[in-house]
Amino acid sequence: MPHTYEYPRAALTVDCVVFGFDEAELKVLLIRRGLAPFKGKWALPGGFVRLEETVDEAARRELSEETGLKDVFLEQLYTFGAIDRDPRERVVSVAYYALVKLAEHPATGASDASDAQWFTVAELPALAFDHADILRTALERLRGKVRYEPIGFELLPQKFTLSELQHLYEAVLQANLDKRNFRKKILSMGLLLPLKEQARTGAHRPAQLFRFDAKKYSALKKRGFNFEL
Amino acid sequence: MPHTYEYPRAALTVDCVVFGFDEAELKVLLIRRGLAPFKGKWALPGGFVRLEETVDEAARRELSEETGLKDVFLEQLYTFGAIDRDPRERVVSVAYYALVKLAEHPATGASDASDAQWFTVAELPALAFDHADILRTALERLRGKVRYEPIGFELLPQKFTLSELQHLYEAVLQANLDKRNFRKKILSMGLLLPLKEQARTGAHRPAQLFRFDAKKYSALKKRGFNFEL
Repeated sequence: MPHTYEYPRAALTVDCVVFGFDEAELKVLLIRRGLAPFKGKWALPGGFVRLEETVDEAARRELSEETGLKDVFLEQLYTFGAIDRDPRERVVSVAYYALVKLAEHPATGASDASDAQWFTVAELPALAFDHADILRTALERLRGKVRYEPIGFELLPQKFTLSELQHLYEAVLQANLDKRNFRKKILSMGLLLPLKEQARTGAHRPAQLFRFDAKKYSALKKRGFNFEL
Repeated sequence: MPHTYEYPRAALTVDCVVFGFDEAELKVLLIRRGLAPFKGKWALPGGFVRLEETVDEAARRELSEETGLKDVFLEQLYTFGAIDRDPRERVVSVAYYALVKLAEHPATGASDASDAQWFTVAELPALAFDHADILRTALERLRGKVRYEPIGFELLPQKFTLSELQHLYEAVLQANLDKRNFRKKILSMGLLLPLKEQARTGAHRPAQLFRFDAKKYSALKKRGFNFEL
């Protein structure tokens, strides 16, 4: 049944940038497109907003349908409204982003996306549409966050070493941080609770495991700070 | 000429929250709606996005048509996608916000808005649609900004007193600040250049005038800080 309007209308879509962190690398979840345009290319999970759902609901639905990811906290990122961003016609896309624990979310493709896979942000394939721009905007937002509030709670496993936390900061900031300064700064925030366990990986000597103090974490997130490199 | 699509489509609009500052009060520019729905009610300037313009361009065009304001730096705020936010039909709106010097932008209604006027944020009339939500989101964004970067450059006249700057902070934060603490903190940032002139208003004794050090201002904006109340 066709739908007729007095003035031409843009189509409205959502796109989701989901970040994960694994083995010192920041990752993003992509799907391989099963349909034209850009058939066979990698893209952010997303699709058209239905009239009977909010834009937020559309983002959650599309992410779930295309990647199997559910119960993810998607935050609105930015709306991309350039004229030629989709070769088919005028399409405006509301982008969202989320941070997840990678281990809890193995990629599982489904439905209209033929494939879903985690990619290292530093080594991405060519992306469909303006998805490289959207991803860049999400990375900038994440880098902005690091300056003002603690990160890691959503991305790291429950127990982690200081090295893992430093690698996360380094991956987000794309910079090498001085180990001693980083530890001093992070520990002085009072965010981390030392555990009685130690991590033993490969030939390295055992490293102290920590978890976040959830109460202090959320208080500091609310109050904010300025994390100087 | 009607336009036909296979699936129903939401209409896409833009809405603009323009803040100004005058006599210790934070103000917002509203238009009185000349057409239904909400005819005669006050609303944020805005309107439908055309297919041949970007969403950013639509925001600039609507703001100019409805209020006469041109050359304003509009920053994207948030996209409002609830289902029933417009009584006519499904309408998704991309909201923008801007900070302007009030003295340079007297309100001048035009075109499809019958009237444009500055209102004190603390004493607003009932607003059309979900514009009260949009305005609240813009205020939260502005309050977030204050914590992390200097504000005032876009809102204050070129020459201002420390009292005016404090009143701006108080209006944005909706809090009373301790005069001595505020002055100490602001002056320690090295943002302000004292002028040789003094301001003389009413029966008050003359007050030192300042201007912003544009270079330091933009450096501090880039680097960020944490402004604790």
